[in-house]
Amino acid sequence: MSMMYEGALQDLVEEFGKLPGIGPKSAQRLAFHILQSPDEEVTALASALAEVKKRVKFCEVCGNVAEDAQCVVCKDPRRDRSIICVVEEPKDVIAIERTREYRGLYHVLGGSIDPMAGVGPDDLRIKELMPRLQDAEVTECVIATDPNLEGEATATYLVRLLGALGITVSRLASGLPVGGDLEYADEVTLGRAFEGRRAVS
Amino acid sequence: MSMMYEGALQDLVEEFGKLPGIGPKSAQRLAFHILQSPDEEVTALASALAEVKKRVKFCEVCGNVAEDAQCVVCKDPRRDRSIICVVEEPKDVIAIERTREYRGLYHVLGGSIDPMAGVGPDDLRIKELMPRLQDAEVTECVIATDPNLEGEATATYLVRLLGALGITVSRLASGLPVGGDLEYADEVTLGRAFEGRRAVS
Repeated sequence: MSMMYEGALQDLVEEFGKLPGIGPKSAQRLAFHILQSPDEEVTALASALAEVKKRVKFCEVCGNVAEDAQCVVCKDPRRDRSIICVVEEPKDVIAIERTREYRGLYHVLGGSIDPMAGVGPDDLRIKELMPRLQDAEVTECVIATDPNLEGEATATYLVRLLGALGITVSRLASGLPVGGDLEYADEVTLGRAFEGRRAVS
Repeated sequence: MSMMYEGALQDLVEEFGKLPGIGPKSAQRLAFHILQSPDEEVTALASALAEVKKRVKFCEVCGNVAEDAQCVVCKDPRRDRSIICVVEEPKDVIAIERTREYRGLYHVLGGSIDPMAGVGPDDLRIKELMPRLQDAEVTECVIATDPNLEGEATATYLVRLLGALGITVSRLASGLPVGGDLEYADEVTLGRAFEGRRAVS
């Protein structure tokens, strides 16, 4: 989209347009929304942006987002320190926390093995994972990478690497998503659901 | 989405989530993008927000966005002052400017007549339009409201109101969008295209 607005409005359209998933039309709509919003709301957004850059860091232990040296999970004395769940990104930590099913610790890899994008094992936080798993307190490592090609490749790599440590290495179950329709499940998911079927009586 | 992130990151997710068209997932993705962006980029966005609120106003003549008392169109001495194009919003001005077909002035109504939303003629900048059209220099008023129910209602209202002024009142042509497929045109558009057909030989 060509330069059409005057200075400040055009600058804002361009800044919004740099954000992921925001096309030129959305950038324009957002800029007009800001123009018509009360000053307090715009100030709140601008200061939230600045605060995130100033205050949010990454946990020195697990790599999750944190406002102190360690994240809320690593700092929490009630967490089960015998089990570490390996995920790709901090947002995966949030997704798992939301289930309230898991009380152990995390380790955030910072991505997945993706040869097409030039990301190999050395680009992930795998070297930081190894000493954590060698702690005598740790008995299990749950691999919870994404159920896609890169996530599976990363999981396969980790399973092989961690085999020698003498701890339980587990992976999340594959199967039908709850609330979905069986007829709409793709064949790989349905195949996994059969493979992982459990006797109930 | 429940509160899951620590302070500053959660605040930013919430602020992004207040913007139009940004759902909880997008708000989270945007917040993580900000977290991983260079400081300069985030500062540029934050200051573009503040600048828009500080510098952008509405043109005292036509109601378009402006950084001075008048907008770039009204200030431009090369514009044809005998013709005024009536649009709903400042973004319609941009859309028409982009065509480079029109060299006259604009008048921004600030919306359209929409009884369901409680917007009547008195809520639009129609009273500001009348004295402009009574200027001896003005010979034509082009009504360019949106081709939807509210835009048509507004156009019908204006055509009736302006009939007594003794100037030409025109409307944009309706018809098939260029680049579209005839078979996919809705019947109202196709009907308008027939109605407005022109002899070419």
